[in-house]
Amino acid sequence: MKRRSFLAGSVAGLVGGASLPTFAQGDALPSWNDGAPKRAILDFVVGTTSLGSRDWIPVPERIACFDNDGTLWTEQPIYFQVMFAMDRVKAMAARNPQWRAQEPFRAVLADDRAALAAMGEKGLLEIMAATHAGLTTEEFRAGVLDWIATARHPRFNRPYTDLVYQPMLELLAYLRAQQFKTYIVSGGGIEFMRPWTERIYGIPPEQVVGSSGVTKWELPSNGVPVLRKEAKVEFIDDGPGKPVGINQFIGRRPVFAFGNSDGDQQMLEWTAAGNRARFMGLVHHTDAVREYAYDRNSPVGRLDKAWDEAVRRKWTVVDMKNDWKVIYPFELR
Amino acid sequence: MKRRSFLAGSVAGLVGGASLPTFAQGDALPSWNDGAPKRAILDFVVGTTSLGSRDWIPVPERIACFDNDGTLWTEQPIYFQVMFAMDRVKAMAARNPQWRAQEPFRAVLADDRAALAAMGEKGLLEIMAATHAGLTTEEFRAGVLDWIATARHPRFNRPYTDLVYQPMLELLAYLRAQQFKTYIVSGGGIEFMRPWTERIYGIPPEQVVGSSGVTKWELPSNGVPVLRKEAKVEFIDDGPGKPVGINQFIGRRPVFAFGNSDGDQQMLEWTAAGNRARFMGLVHHTDAVREYAYDRNSPVGRLDKAWDEAVRRKWTVVDMKNDWKVIYPFELR
Repeated sequence: MKRRSFLAGSVAGLVGGASLPTFAQGDALPSWNDGAPKRAILDFVVGTTSLGSRDWIPVPERIACFDNDGTLWTEQPIYFQVMFAMDRVKAMAARNPQWRAQEPFRAVLADDRAALAAMGEKGLLEIMAATHAGLTTEEFRAGVLDWIATARHPRFNRPYTDLVYQPMLELLAYLRAQQFKTYIVSGGGIEFMRPWTERIYGIPPEQVVGSSGVTKWELPSNGVPVLRKEAKVEFIDDGPGKPVGINQFIGRRPVFAFGNSDGDQQMLEWTAAGNRARFMGLVHHTDAVREYAYDRNSPVGRLDKAWDEAVRRKWTVVDMKNDWKVIYPFELR
Repeated sequence: MKRRSFLAGSVAGLVGGASLPTFAQGDALPSWNDGAPKRAILDFVVGTTSLGSRDWIPVPERIACFDNDGTLWTEQPIYFQVMFAMDRVKAMAARNPQWRAQEPFRAVLADDRAALAAMGEKGLLEIMAATHAGLTTEEFRAGVLDWIATARHPRFNRPYTDLVYQPMLELLAYLRAQQFKTYIVSGGGIEFMRPWTERIYGIPPEQVVGSSGVTKWELPSNGVPVLRKEAKVEFIDDGPGKPVGINQFIGRRPVFAFGNSDGDQQMLEWTAAGNRARFMGLVHHTDAVREYAYDRNSPVGRLDKAWDEAVRRKWTVVDMKNDWKVIYPFELR
């Protein structure tokens, strides 16, 4: 408070000053409680974007990478893409009676979420590949958009895209206002996310990095080419795959990275190894009332080794319950 | 001329008009002779970016994809990346005496360009992978930058990056000024291009799509992670691989695509199959005096089937000799 009064006094004394202190511009992160994570974010952004700052980062190098599941939206009781795959399997089950005895379809049709969760993102991608092989990329996209528009989360009874985190929407917007380029770097399927990330997060498809299946060019006799999905996983953008994906898709090292689970550890380590100022953050899910509480023992979004490393290396760890005033945008309406 | 005079008269009569006719803004493509290709480009850009136009394209969908070798810079007497690989092989030959009898190294050390050209971009990638396996991505980048700064083209005795096409630099700048996002989509190696495309073309690394080798995450005992290149080709961004790469990296269909060889045919077909206004162009190398003249029978940059299709479907074909006033930027100095 003392420092603020002092600066406020200085501001009053300025005549036509070009740069007011940041706090005078209003709160860019109103859903964040005052505390270490909010302070660390503001310090990083002000320090890297203010002219004359020792830590100033040229605009093209302002690359910020966010995990999606559990970092930008909820991932419980199971990754939302698994819910999508389950709904697709169920819709196709009548035409495939053998699935009742055949994994992973059996687990899906039996609603065996424990088995599904234990498969991890690789298992999910195998289900996705198996159930979506044969679709063109445009058919798949239409299926995703239809599901996003109609499916509802079992606990909140709302569209899945309502379950994005308001504080992270504010952070994304704040970073973009300071000329950071915001990317998703997710273990989830790239073609599952791209149809809606621009509308929901303001992140365009070309800034979404994710896991993928093989697609193949086809030129049918009607002369209208299609890309058709095959039943083969191409790339797993998880764990050590995240820095590989970042290098492949972006070709620059991020200066800002946010995740929530052990699958984000290498992305954070890769960011931390840069030689510019950099920010590494983790969301810790501590709020069983407003969202979910889980960490070291969760089959979905396990946070164990990455947490230990974050504590050891003084990365920012967000305590959802205490650091976030609001979880979901609908709480504000 | 008549139309210009008429419009100029109209302009003189405007008081504070918000939108002047395009020609009044000066010539965006001064190195292009007046002719069908220049007219087609201007018609497309004006038609898709003018408010009120029937063909208007929303800014986020303004995706323009350019092949690199033979479209943005010269590719003769052989792809420049092959020259780079040859120089690397020669530098490493003393430590690898067995290479004198072992293809493809033998061809490189014997300067057997015919054998190298016949290998195509896949052969090149195999040489690249073999000679660069074991390097970290940062070591590779440093090697590329060093070569780009020192190597000279055998005919022009200039740095390779001097051999970019002035008319295409103007086209890239014009498209960007009209809020198109310009991408490279090349059969060349993604990590060979990214270190210099921003400085030379104004195209940042994250807008470069290309072929790639497998890289792997390593966390050595010093705690500083690296990505290390392996001797394995991961993705060939050529022919049918180009639309696959565009879908994978960009996730939107381009509305503008420019190539120069059969390796660009599917990228052009994919662009042509969109349902917005769209532009498909090919550079035809017809100028043996100022650059090179080659098409149907060239082992490098063969233009045969794509040319036939361009003529049949009325895509734009640039006749380098007649359509370009200037080939290289250094001609202007």
